[in-house]
Amino acid sequence: MAVPHPLPGNARCYPHRMKLALLGAGRIGQIHAANIHHHPRARLHAVADVNAEAARSLGERYGAKASTDIDAVLADPALEGVFICTSTDTHVELILKAARRKLPIFCEKPIDLDLAKVDTCLAEVTRAGVPLMIGFNRRFDPHFRSLREAVRQGEAGDVEIVKITSRDPAPPPPAYVRVSGGIFRDMMIHDLDMARFLLGEEPVEIFATGSCLVDPGIGEAGDIDTAMVILKTQRGALCHIDNSRRAVYGYDQRIEVFGSKGMLQAANPLPTTVTRYTREAVLSDKPYHFFLDRYPEAYRAELEHFLDVVTGRAEPLVTGRDGRAALVLADAALQSLKLGKPIPIPR
Amino acid sequence: MAVPHPLPGNARCYPHRMKLALLGAGRIGQIHAANIHHHPRARLHAVADVNAEAARSLGERYGAKASTDIDAVLADPALEGVFICTSTDTHVELILKAARRKLPIFCEKPIDLDLAKVDTCLAEVTRAGVPLMIGFNRRFDPHFRSLREAVRQGEAGDVEIVKITSRDPAPPPPAYVRVSGGIFRDMMIHDLDMARFLLGEEPVEIFATGSCLVDPGIGEAGDIDTAMVILKTQRGALCHIDNSRRAVYGYDQRIEVFGSKGMLQAANPLPTTVTRYTREAVLSDKPYHFFLDRYPEAYRAELEHFLDVVTGRAEPLVTGRDGRAALVLADAALQSLKLGKPIPIPR
Amino acid sequence: MAVPHPLPGNARCYPHRMKLALLGAGRIGQIHAANIHHHPRARLHAVADVNAEAARSLGERYGAKASTDIDAVLADPALEGVFICTSTDTHVELILKAARRKLPIFCEKPIDLDLAKVDTCLAEVTRAGVPLMIGFNRRFDPHFRSLREAVRQGEAGDVEIVKITSRDPAPPPPAYVRVSGGIFRDMMIHDLDMARFLLGEEPVEIFATGSCLVDPGIGEAGDIDTAMVILKTQRGALCHIDNSRRAVYGYDQRIEVFGSKGMLQAANPLPTTVTRYTREAVLSDKPYHFFLDRYPEAYRAELEHFLDVVTGRAEPLVTGRDGRAALVLADAALQSLKLGKPIPIPR
Amino acid sequence: MAVPHPLPGNARCYPHRMKLALLGAGRIGQIHAANIHHHPRARLHAVADVNAEAARSLGERYGAKASTDIDAVLADPALEGVFICTSTDTHVELILKAARRKLPIFCEKPIDLDLAKVDTCLAEVTRAGVPLMIGFNRRFDPHFRSLREAVRQGEAGDVEIVKITSRDPAPPPPAYVRVSGGIFRDMMIHDLDMARFLLGEEPVEIFATGSCLVDPGIGEAGDIDTAMVILKTQRGALCHIDNSRRAVYGYDQRIEVFGSKGMLQAANPLPTTVTRYTREAVLSDKPYHFFLDRYPEAYRAELEHFLDVVTGRAEPLVTGRDGRAALVLADAALQSLKLGKPIPIPR
Repeated sequence: MAVPHPLPGNARCYPHRMKLALLGAGRIGQIHAANIHHHPRARLHAVADVNAEAARSLGERYGAKASTDIDAVLADPALEGVFICTSTDTHVELILKAARRKLPIFCEKPIDLDLAKVDTCLAEVTRAGVPLMIGFNRRFDPHFRSLREAVRQGEAGDVEIVKITSRDPAPPPPAYVRVSGGIFRDMMIHDLDMARFLLGEEPVEIFATGSCLVDPGIGEAGDIDTAMVILKTQRGALCHIDNSRRAVYGYDQRIEVFGSKGMLQAANPLPTTVTRYTREAVLSDKPYHFFLDRYPEAYRAELEHFLDVVTGRAEPLVTGRDGRAALVLADAALQSLKLGKPIPIPR
Repeated sequence: MAVPHPLPGNARCYPHRMKLALLGAGRIGQIHAANIHHHPRARLHAVADVNAEAARSLGERYGAKASTDIDAVLADPALEGVFICTSTDTHVELILKAARRKLPIFCEKPIDLDLAKVDTCLAEVTRAGVPLMIGFNRRFDPHFRSLREAVRQGEAGDVEIVKITSRDPAPPPPAYVRVSGGIFRDMMIHDLDMARFLLGEEPVEIFATGSCLVDPGIGEAGDIDTAMVILKTQRGALCHIDNSRRAVYGYDQRIEVFGSKGMLQAANPLPTTVTRYTREAVLSDKPYHFFLDRYPEAYRAELEHFLDVVTGRAEPLVTGRDGRAALVLADAALQSLKLGKPIPIPR
Repeated sequence: MAVPHPLPGNARCYPHRMKLALLGAGRIGQIHAANIHHHPRARLHAVADVNAEAARSLGERYGAKASTDIDAVLADPALEGVFICTSTDTHVELILKAARRKLPIFCEKPIDLDLAKVDTCLAEVTRAGVPLMIGFNRRFDPHFRSLREAVRQGEAGDVEIVKITSRDPAPPPPAYVRVSGGIFRDMMIHDLDMARFLLGEEPVEIFATGSCLVDPGIGEAGDIDTAMVILKTQRGALCHIDNSRRAVYGYDQRIEVFGSKGMLQAANPLPTTVTRYTREAVLSDKPYHFFLDRYPEAYRAELEHFLDVVTGRAEPLVTGRDGRAALVLADAALQSLKLGKPIPIPR
Repeated sequence: MAVPHPLPGNARCYPHRMKLALLGAGRIGQIHAANIHHHPRARLHAVADVNAEAARSLGERYGAKASTDIDAVLADPALEGVFICTSTDTHVELILKAARRKLPIFCEKPIDLDLAKVDTCLAEVTRAGVPLMIGFNRRFDPHFRSLREAVRQGEAGDVEIVKITSRDPAPPPPAYVRVSGGIFRDMMIHDLDMARFLLGEEPVEIFATGSCLVDPGIGEAGDIDTAMVILKTQRGALCHIDNSRRAVYGYDQRIEVFGSKGMLQAANPLPTTVTRYTREAVLSDKPYHFFLDRYPEAYRAELEHFLDVVTGRAEPLVTGRDGRAALVLADAALQSLKLGKPIPIPR
């Protein structure tokens, strides 16, 4: 086939592949490792994990050095950037180490569950002058990005109502719930970030409510599994978020923005466009099962953006301040739930 | 065409047409008048309105007696049922008059804006032993009815989340807002009834918030035009309602029910199934403009059901208690808005 | 409820109800009888059927005279119009009788299976100067009408491809097939008329092919049950039609028009907008079961239009020439099938 | 984030990357080059093109040897497989050279425009005992693959009707049309292959018709730009294909399979799920613009499958016989168009 159409525009030459270290070889770390490996501008230089076998196997797969010694990995002068994908309680320490090494940092959300620690951390990062990007992957999803761009272009007019639906396919074990910081800081934090991303101004008030309807063990662990939140901005725009830890039909992630000029909706993308007409019903695909299936493009776009940040072509789209602001909202949601009334958002 | 397929099943014979009086010849009264006239089991016997010309013209159109004297109309011994479609402040008085006449009553919502008056009224109706049906037309919409039937059959499992979207195409004039009882008692009352219809148990708590974003005149009239409410039941199920007085794309009426076995959604029906693929986009129809276009089948089904009630074949699907309960929720929403916190629902 | 919005525009006064006679009290006759009865401008004056009981019961239901004597019915000087819904072999005779009585005529399709008889009939109708409207109900379906209006407005640009899908839920008995004139004259004739309606110019060539895949009894009766046709116009526009006598998911009626400016599609309307998300799949309603459920608005709009024809407000949208032209195409399709090659359309 | 869910299952180790040569560095060659480069089991070893600069720039981008000397490239003993993406008139010669080198071959469609040359070629390939895979990429599209798998599983029952829509966004220049072999051998050949893929048995008859409606230059080049074809199998199943060289709304690729148990449809996937509700309409995304945007997963899956073929894990899903069979159908379509009648398919 030699169709005489113009050449594709991506005929760029990539002479250099940035050497990145991955800290944390768990599930999300493996996603980033694969994307880094396959990216023409990046190279997985080193992998560190407290679990030696996890580090070794991932390193071997992509030809990267493997280690259990994070300090040694960070000391490598060839390094040009760091992905922090370890457990939440180690984020601040690793951010600070990387900042001292003057390395651009990508860190999975949340920065920490403790706001005071987050503030100290961000202050040091600022002093170090290194870019820090937080892993709110949904901002990079093509559907939500297109929606947000339309909002920014004024297609909905003045934003008056935002509705975010976010439901996981199955609840995590109660043991995880106990250390996760709870549904607001672990799960809804993504939606709270999305709310800020879409509202165009900061929420000034939050009301949260919820129930334990899915797994009594979650209630025994002191958490809820079904939650609703209403945010209000200074101007009076309203944002509703609903979360459930269990949607039997799969990962349900939808957004609606309503305003003076109309409404924008982003629906769940489906694996295939196949529809079946039978004697009983008309059937379509279910949504994707979970975030690894739902957000592959988002993870790739996130990396692309981070590489632009590292090379100074872009400011981080999701900064440490964004990471902090979402945590503030999550903490306020928790307080609202406990007090049973709306809470003003602290600045 | 003489296709040898079986005959349709509606080959019933209707020997009697029930003689109904219509009180109130305004917009919604005209809808009921037309439906009564065209129904094989009903006849529009009389029309009464304080506006003599409105009564006369409607009566003439359908061959019904016209009058400005409601008492005279109700005194007619031939009468078998009454439709009350007058302004809200006259509902209780007319219900009581009809009840004394032992006539089955259909009354548009709300019964009254004052709960004490409602209670007195319902007590008298009970004593009179006449059936009273309230015009929550959406319960009769085929889409919502199908959704509710699926919920009742357990297709969603235990109901955990209900979401109701209800937006008008354009705001009423502030002068109307002033006498309407406000957004909760005038507009959201339909959604509050729908919430009760779907939740399967009574809400025990309500939180309401809102803003005036559409028309400053509505704010000056002491009301809001954009509202959100969260209801919670004893069992912990959550229901969210959002209202706006202005959706530029038309009348937006959607429902979502989420539970342990899945999700049910009722979307906006569209005037036609025509899709246009152009150089710029793929275009579908907008939703219907407003309730007269959106709910014609519901008004017809409402009448059908009322005729069954009159003939003793059915209990009212929407009773005076339902009318009262929705008003209680609307009042509680208003109180929550004023106090800025959740309110327990009084019994 | 007394919302201060403008009154609906249908506040016309209908002083006169046109007296119509229905010939043929079968399934389709009953549809027309009900619509006539409920129409404010029409009255079912008389019903005639060779089956005395069928005539009597339909007449009783709607307060119309019933008879087995069509001549007597037509002789009634009060009559203002006639609906012919008898079996196809009687259409021409009854059209001629009604034409001699100078009555406006609505006749179900097809006029006759014999083209020579059709030509004689139409010539007499023309001489009599009475309007004759043929019951191609799909032209009055709101979805297809909206599609056609968009085509007429040039939204698709120059029409290049038309695709019509038309599938029945279940095959008729072979005994019916034997007298029906076959799939082209009994079933596809509707699609052939729709093709003419949409193409904007006459087809000049037709190719038909098909198989007996559904019911061997249909093959033994000399017919096929699965058919495809391609029409071509002078300008080179192409139209494809596919028919099946059995679609297990219901009555499948879709149209696609493609042209220089884009594409227009009319999909199957569905009974409700309810979608179910389960552990297994996402389910929507099936299409309507058959034409009585699918086309109620079309039958009502057809009557509305006929009343306008009777009162001289409109020319018939579907004339005797249209009925003839569709039959010519059906005959040519049959000839093409028999000869196994494309056939030029005779004028 | 360290969610305690199971690890993804793709934790395989890839010790070896197969060394592949790419012949032809044009548009489609560049797609394969990128996919080969990014695949963990493959390596782009060499690129050959008569255009030295095209070869050099692609080779540089992916670290592959570049050459204008195909013989030299094929002589490299390290080579493990070949991608032939040159112009159609060179396919046979290159297939034969690769076959003599005993290399597994991937060749873009069509093998050749001359059936006799194809037969000679396939005979030699068979003698050489090397696997040959033809690039009918649509068989690897996830939507169509899912549809086909459902057909194979019997979800549609016995297949009775297949409908394939295939429209390009814009016509190629007439100069290209002149050497392309015409619409049937250049464009519809994909659909003819898809028809065979879905029908489950060979077509025995074909009828083709068409017009030049888009670009008179195409007509002057002796071709048509709007085409319809009907295929019929021994059993009587019917397949319709429609092609247009210009769909202003984008690349339109849809399939419908209808049978005794229901219908399966594969619709156009859309870039995003965003819907816009405005004062004027409800808008969705247009389909993708053209095949490079529409079929990226298909090209990747095609490579994946070829690697399995090379390593002996799989037989080619698209063989030389398939390439030949599609050409036979395209030739028969052209003959039917010329003769103006259906043509039996030669074996």
